[in-house]
Amino acid sequence: MAKIIAINAGSSSLKFQLFEMPEEHVIAKGIIERIGLNDSIFTLTVNGEKYTDTLDIPNHAAAVNMLLDKLTSKDIIKSLNEIEGVGHRVVHGGELFRDSVVVTEKVVKQIEGLSDLAPLHNPANLTGIIAFQKALPEVPEVAVFDTAFHQTMPENSFLYSLPYEYYKKYGIRKYGFHGTSHKYVSQRAAEILGRPIEQLRILSCHLGNGASIAAIEGGKSIDTSMGFTPLAGVTMGTRSGNLDPALIPFIMEKTGKTAEEVLEVLNKESGLLGVSGVSSDLRDITIAAEQGDERAILALEVFASRIHKYIGSYAARMSGMDVIIFTAGIGENSEAVRARVLRGLEFMGVYWNTDLNKVRGEETFLNYPHSPVKVMVIPTNEEVMIARDVIRLKPL
Amino acid sequence: MAKIIAINAGSSSLKFQLFEMPEEHVIAKGIIERIGLNDSIFTLTVNGEKYTDTLDIPNHAAAVNMLLDKLTSKDIIKSLNEIEGVGHRVVHGGELFRDSVVVTEKVVKQIEGLSDLAPLHNPANLTGIIAFQKALPEVPEVAVFDTAFHQTMPENSFLYSLPYEYYKKYGIRKYGFHGTSHKYVSQRAAEILGRPIEQLRILSCHLGNGASIAAIEGGKSIDTSMGFTPLAGVTMGTRSGNLDPALIPFIMEKTGKTAEEVLEVLNKESGLLGVSGVSSDLRDITIAAEQGDERAILALEVFASRIHKYIGSYAARMSGMDVIIFTAGIGENSEAVRARVLRGLEFMGVYWNTDLNKVRGEETFLNYPHSPVKVMVIPTNEEVMIARDVIRLKPL
Repeated sequence: MAKIIAINAGSSSLKFQLFEMPEEHVIAKGIIERIGLNDSIFTLTVNGEKYTDTLDIPNHAAAVNMLLDKLTSKDIIKSLNEIEGVGHRVVHGGELFRDSVVVTEKVVKQIEGLSDLAPLHNPANLTGIIAFQKALPEVPEVAVFDTAFHQTMPENSFLYSLPYEYYKKYGIRKYGFHGTSHKYVSQRAAEILGRPIEQLRILSCHLGNGASIAAIEGGKSIDTSMGFTPLAGVTMGTRSGNLDPALIPFIMEKTGKTAEEVLEVLNKESGLLGVSGVSSDLRDITIAAEQGDERAILALEVFASRIHKYIGSYAARMSGMDVIIFTAGIGENSEAVRARVLRGLEFMGVYWNTDLNKVRGEETFLNYPHSPVKVMVIPTNEEVMIARDVIRLKPL
Repeated sequence: MAKIIAINAGSSSLKFQLFEMPEEHVIAKGIIERIGLNDSIFTLTVNGEKYTDTLDIPNHAAAVNMLLDKLTSKDIIKSLNEIEGVGHRVVHGGELFRDSVVVTEKVVKQIEGLSDLAPLHNPANLTGIIAFQKALPEVPEVAVFDTAFHQTMPENSFLYSLPYEYYKKYGIRKYGFHGTSHKYVSQRAAEILGRPIEQLRILSCHLGNGASIAAIEGGKSIDTSMGFTPLAGVTMGTRSGNLDPALIPFIMEKTGKTAEEVLEVLNKESGLLGVSGVSSDLRDITIAAEQGDERAILALEVFASRIHKYIGSYAARMSGMDVIIFTAGIGENSEAVRARVLRGLEFMGVYWNTDLNKVRGEETFLNYPHSPVKVMVIPTNEEVMIARDVIRLKPL
């Protein structure tokens, strides 16, 4: 029985889950927030009980030491020797990483080298890796990339219609994100259906504050809606998704903003928030829409119709589909969004049931039994994928 | 029998066709190129014979006077009094024009006012209008807008997921272009099928050097691939189509270009040209691909797969489709592109015949008779639409 920690490190936070493997049982989980600021918050949940501490945690190294202290002092584990591996979410693996990888000095340098492509995320992810290297130098670490699952995309999917040398010189191409989630739910769908994933064409809709759609053929991602960055694709909480690129110079000229400032608007003031003017949170928008707020209604329609169109698009990409999956916060919980996304897809073999759609956050089918295309809600679990990859890849 | 002139004025050119209406018979047509430069070229085709003159034409007014001179001096018409109306293509009608309109002083000002949205096109189109106002002050003129047909799009189609005030303040929304062409071929499809257009869901693919796809439900455009400008949507001859908007600041930083310069690359050095490195002309690329040029093959695949995905997307938008139309240079003539675009759409009811697909430039069906979705090639005719609108709208 191996104990594995799955880590998701942000610039001022560190999320963790402690697994018992191969049972995939979560022993403890939590989050350390406001690292490097005053009044950092340490939250730990174990056996359904939640502990919170507020204290100053100056950096990620201190955060990791505190986490390991708590695991032993609260008798969650007897000794740090029980920890057999640590897995880290890393956002960008570029074209270097088609799979998760055991962390070596070379890998650390490669992840650093990719920071150009993910300046906000990769350096933050690395702080977690380095903190654990110091705290548990003998324990193997594994990096699990958001982009790796999409590295199977063919060139005609990932290449932009730009001068070709932009791809060769600057790495400009579609990478795609949420790969760990798309991989988890597609594998889980095959398991539930009892069919080999090699025979399935899966349309996976990861709809959270960030959202992406993936076309998964035979278990491999062949197209996805996010692009060079997680800004592209469908409407998101605060992100615009796809735009006419000519709008950037136009907005710069009209508002006097720099390109970077416009990008900031596209990332943080657009999407559901920009359209609705109410909130970036779909739950708030749904309530406002039910109360008749016109822009909230519009935001819901814009959001759902963009996803709806991607389903048609990727169904064409795969010459049909066998399964549609909804996952992540909105996908798992929003009856309204799923209903709007699924509306009028009967011509492609999608027959679903409004009563079944009332579900929230559990594995279930939404389709009628006779529907050629199955429609499933599958709560995602990126952490367990990280733990699985640690077990699969760590040296014996 | 009314004689109507249809005009398409560019910044240094003026294309014309003289129609006999309502027969829609083309009496003469031609183009004046290099207006305002040395060695302007005047080309006139009448009864299958082509005349070319090379001489200096200083401005659009002189070009129009020369055109009118030739029409009488070559006995194409007996007197200028025979001309009962002039129709002008105008690229951008913004939200002001949902239909063609008789040109008044107010309309001229409105078209000028929209130049912000189409700085290269509207002022050029206006030079043609003003030149005819001077040359034929008694003859009614009608403006026909590329955007007008798409003004039926619902807000959830045309709105970007940006801060809502960008729409209200700056007119930032999807307008769509090629409207006159999409309208022509969709009406023609209904005629050929002998079915009321109100009952049809049409997927119109205008594929030329510029390319756009439209979803036309009951004769009305409800979505289209071009956006705020004609840069958006599918890959084109030299235009990129859709991109991750975050690429613009990234390319600026990497290349040291300004936003305007990057936009220039996206408009003029991207698309088929950028990917293939061979040419912006699909015919050249097709030849190179047949000779095994890998990037030419890739460019064809990128181009066709983007269109293919729009078909799926817009079929979903309309909950199915009845007709796919191919038009414009590539759509009418490229067997290779149509074949790749249509591949694997059987699951949506598209059954087509490779032998029928060998057609070039004529009205025909590509589908098997039993195919639920009809697939048609329909050569476009924007000029006749302009002439028809002149007849429909001109004061008696």
